[in-house]
Amino acid sequence: MDIREELEIIKRGAVEIITERELKEKLERSRRTGRPLRIKAGFDPTAPDIHLGHTVLIQKMKQFQDLGHEVYFLIGDFTGMIGDPSGRNEMRSPLTRDEVLANAKTYREQIFKILDPEKTRVVFNSEWMNLMSAAQLIELAGKYTVARMLERDDFHKRFIGHYPIGIHEFLYPLIQGYDSVALNADVELGGTDQKFNLIVGRELQKEFGQEPQVIITMPLLEGIDGVQKMSKSLGNYIGINEPPKEIYGKIMSISDDLMWRYYELLSSLTMDEIRRMKNQAESGEVNPKEFKKRLAFEIVERFHGYEASCYAQRLFEEQFEKRCIPSDLESMDYFTNSEKVSIIDLLVDCKMVSSKSEARRLIRQGSVVMDGVKLSDELSQISAKESIIVKVGKRKIKRIVFKKS
Amino acid sequence: MDIREELEIIKRGAVEIITERELKEKLERSRRTGRPLRIKAGFDPTAPDIHLGHTVLIQKMKQFQDLGHEVYFLIGDFTGMIGDPSGRNEMRSPLTRDEVLANAKTYREQIFKILDPEKTRVVFNSEWMNLMSAAQLIELAGKYTVARMLERDDFHKRFIGHYPIGIHEFLYPLIQGYDSVALNADVELGGTDQKFNLIVGRELQKEFGQEPQVIITMPLLEGIDGVQKMSKSLGNYIGINEPPKEIYGKIMSISDDLMWRYYELLSSLTMDEIRRMKNQAESGEVNPKEFKKRLAFEIVERFHGYEASCYAQRLFEEQFEKRCIPSDLESMDYFTNSEKVSIIDLLVDCKMVSSKSEARRLIRQGSVVMDGVKLSDELSQISAKESIIVKVGKRKIKRIVFKKS
Repeated sequence: MDIREELEIIKRGAVEIITERELKEKLERSRRTGRPLRIKAGFDPTAPDIHLGHTVLIQKMKQFQDLGHEVYFLIGDFTGMIGDPSGRNEMRSPLTRDEVLANAKTYREQIFKILDPEKTRVVFNSEWMNLMSAAQLIELAGKYTVARMLERDDFHKRFIGHYPIGIHEFLYPLIQGYDSVALNADVELGGTDQKFNLIVGRELQKEFGQEPQVIITMPLLEGIDGVQKMSKSLGNYIGINEPPKEIYGKIMSISDDLMWRYYELLSSLTMDEIRRMKNQAESGEVNPKEFKKRLAFEIVERFHGYEASCYAQRLFEEQFEKRCIPSDLESMDYFTNSEKVSIIDLLVDCKMVSSKSEARRLIRQGSVVMDGVKLSDELSQISAKESIIVKVGKRKIKRIVFKKS
Repeated sequence: MDIREELEIIKRGAVEIITERELKEKLERSRRTGRPLRIKAGFDPTAPDIHLGHTVLIQKMKQFQDLGHEVYFLIGDFTGMIGDPSGRNEMRSPLTRDEVLANAKTYREQIFKILDPEKTRVVFNSEWMNLMSAAQLIELAGKYTVARMLERDDFHKRFIGHYPIGIHEFLYPLIQGYDSVALNADVELGGTDQKFNLIVGRELQKEFGQEPQVIITMPLLEGIDGVQKMSKSLGNYIGINEPPKEIYGKIMSISDDLMWRYYELLSSLTMDEIRRMKNQAESGEVNPKEFKKRLAFEIVERFHGYEASCYAQRLFEEQFEKRCIPSDLESMDYFTNSEKVSIIDLLVDCKMVSSKSEARRLIRQGSVVMDGVKLSDELSQISAKESIIVKVGKRKIKRIVFKKS
């Protein structure tokens, strides 16, 4: 692959690269010296209820990783452990060390569905920030002016609108910037909303005698409504921990335009393949819905595995396309008025196990699979809605259809 | 003395007390519990070329000390050792530990001409600030908003005028305020230009669960021109290390109005005595010049001792009032074209000692007095201007009149 092709992959989906010339120089030097670039992306240490929007950055990290560079997944636990001491912003309450570690564990589990764990460095900024003295922080603060900090869009709006800005909030961008110094980052990735902070990093690196990082901003992914950015509070999100059939169904609900955008930002297919598909859809050769199913399949497979994705697809086709699916599945009705049913009870009631203790043992062994997803928690409650396909061991498999009793 | 009288002494010369009610309560409680109040005043660690303007605060500390309270002379060495990291303000370059210690030594020598060394606590804010972590400083910064910090007059002017303000500059008032927390100060004294910072201290104490300090602002003393504030750069200052006759002469040059102001802010006479004198001057009973001489005498005596003040007064009277002073002094001319003369050479040339080594020995013994001031440094150069009175041991005394050769 030549540099031009490498640049094409890196530029895919990016909103802005500051600067492309510097990026090219870094890539060239990396080839010359054999030293991979250090790619940084920072994440909040708050409860990582990751949705597809977050994975845009992780997907970009994956591309760098595949190109042989070193990716740093930085968890900003230092500020998270301080929280917002003013108490003015109720959204940011300080996290304990244990919470941060628990969140980090969840992060790892999620991101390693995309990134290669062997090649990913997960770092915490408390590693260096806990060692920093007040005196050093004052020195850092001396490298930026109040006026320039107020240029940051959200600060500017709050200042103009007379909403309070805590002085510590002016320190956060400097700390985020200093993280780039501590890592000696070559490239920092971030959402477009992070541009200001990424530039602070660039400038602090210069102050500390380092070569400034290249910054690459990625768009904030639109939610399934195709209008507003994906966000849990807006209800237009696809959580990567949602059940396979939910993810599959949500992706099938998006517009064709949004599908191409998701392809660009989320798919692992090359842009050449994507362009080819788009041509086929536009010429009428292939129904775009088929490509949407391909995207849904890819995303579900990424987070839940091949088998679960097959199930999700089959369920979708059965339910929405009324396709006659060749099925050797035994089906049985399950009558309940509850919203949720204990998995243990369900297995016993449907005679898929002989006792509760057997049910527990089989779950612990990982032998119980529901809609293609292996269960690991014997206390799981499952939603008694429509139907599910339950598999126990290699042979026993049933479709269970929920009915009101 | 009752509380009312105590309050009168404290209020003497003060511009503002925030609040007088709280001060009264603190004074009352102090009497009741026998616990003295903790009085804080902060000083720069930069080269302490102290002039009378600085002593306004020290005089107020002295009054508190005489009233039985505990005074803390705080040297802000922490920020001084950081300096201004931006390099934008050339006036504040960082000081080394040695420079700070040397300056502190000079401070001690100077302030103990006013304050009682036994009862004065000299403290350095590096004692607690060097232990502070970046995390703690961020927490501190969270207790104040950008908008409120920009209310400080100088920040406001610079912000409006588009002059850069380093973000670290926003941290300095917080550190100064935190010093009050560290000392658990009951009262903080400062110039009127310090009002904002003193209030920050008050508010931080509340945040830290302490009773807020009372703040007392003192005026910035006018220089001998009676117009602008006393400052070395304006040349209108009286340095407390200046020779007795210089100080004496400068005080004699001020206006009558300014004299009364100096009396209020600098003299140890009670306000009753000062009012009495003022009445005598206004009624024509006494020439105000006599009171000016009394003030000059008091100030010179404070910094150079009684003998030196007598000499200064005599020189002044002789020179400017052409008074015939009964004098048994032998006078001799000393011809030189230099601006300065080595004291050793002078003693030898004038035959007041038999050799350079004797001169050195006598200086080391403290037996050489010039214009009433005991010499301690054998390398002293003295100004070859007009005349001086040199005394060696108990008996040898000569007036030496400098002439161009």
